[in-house]
Amino acid sequence: MQGGSNADVAGAADLVVVAVPFAGHAELLAELAPALAGKVVVDCVVPMGWDELGAYVLDVAEGSVTQQAAALLPDSWVVGAFHHLSAVSLEDLSQPTLDGDVMVVGDDRAAMDLVQALAGLLPGLRGVYAGRLRNARQVEALTINLVSVNRRYKTHAGVRVTGV
Amino acid sequence: MQGGSNADVAGAADLVVVAVPFAGHAELLAELAPALAGKVVVDCVVPMGWDELGAYVLDVAEGSVTQQAAALLPDSWVVGAFHHLSAVSLEDLSQPTLDGDVMVVGDDRAAMDLVQALAGLLPGLRGVYAGRLRNARQVEALTINLVSVNRRYKTHAGVRVTGV
Repeated sequence: MQGGSNADVAGAADLVVVAVPFAGHAELLAELAPALAGKVVVDCVVPMGWDELGAYVLDVAEGSVTQQAAALLPDSWVVGAFHHLSAVSLEDLSQPTLDGDVMVVGDDRAAMDLVQALAGLLPGLRGVYAGRLRNARQVEALTINLVSVNRRYKTHAGVRVTGV
Repeated sequence: MQGGSNADVAGAADLVVVAVPFAGHAELLAELAPALAGKVVVDCVVPMGWDELGAYVLDVAEGSVTQQAAALLPDSWVVGAFHHLSAVSLEDLSQPTLDGDVMVVGDDRAAMDLVQALAGLLPGLRGVYAGRLRNARQVEALTINLVSVNRRYKTHAGVRVTGV
């Protein structure tokens, strides 16, 4: 493992996962666009706001965060995925496997296949094709419902696609 | 089982499930509002459009179909649920159980508890609290991603909430 500036690390990677707060998403990607050209960019950012009623979906002018990434990175292969994974579950090494599926959205089949395969490397997870880029919004936003599930059931919820 | 006009049936029921194409949703509910007063109304309508690229989400001025129902039925208890159930799976009596969860969204706890319990009566299903009315949109719209899953994997996909 190696660290470095965002631009250096992005430039050296074959595939880059964008996991930042939505507030800094557009600015970061605009800055990194040259370094990310020609690469697969996996966006897992959720447009989530909070108020006294809990979590809610922030509007994104492009329709979704993944579409925003695609607009800012015209020379990259942008895929949306990994929104529903609980960071707590990922960090809990006492559990032998995770429990859920990774919904993968995008318009480039080869990039999606790669990201689905990557998801499948995590124990207990599968990467599932979940539609085109224009249908990314609800996949991202469903994370906000999982936050509601977590609060109600005191859990770290995920999602599995049944029938696949 | 008994049939009748929409208004007669709605007026005689304790709980009404709205399962109509989105195109007729607002008109129907506006007309039935008096008959539905005081009742639990379960909306499972998906705002889905189709074009040459497949299914996509239709914009709803109120934010979601369930919020549209709530706006049109101020004297009813409106809950969103049952969006992700495959009609084909429901009709296939050769399968002993269904496989999935029913995500239930709304703002009235008692009505939601009732709908969750109702969902739990279907073999293999659970009713899961999935957040407030304002977070209904992505639950409805996720059905469109399941349509993409169905096309890709030749299946009748559903959703299960893991960790609950």
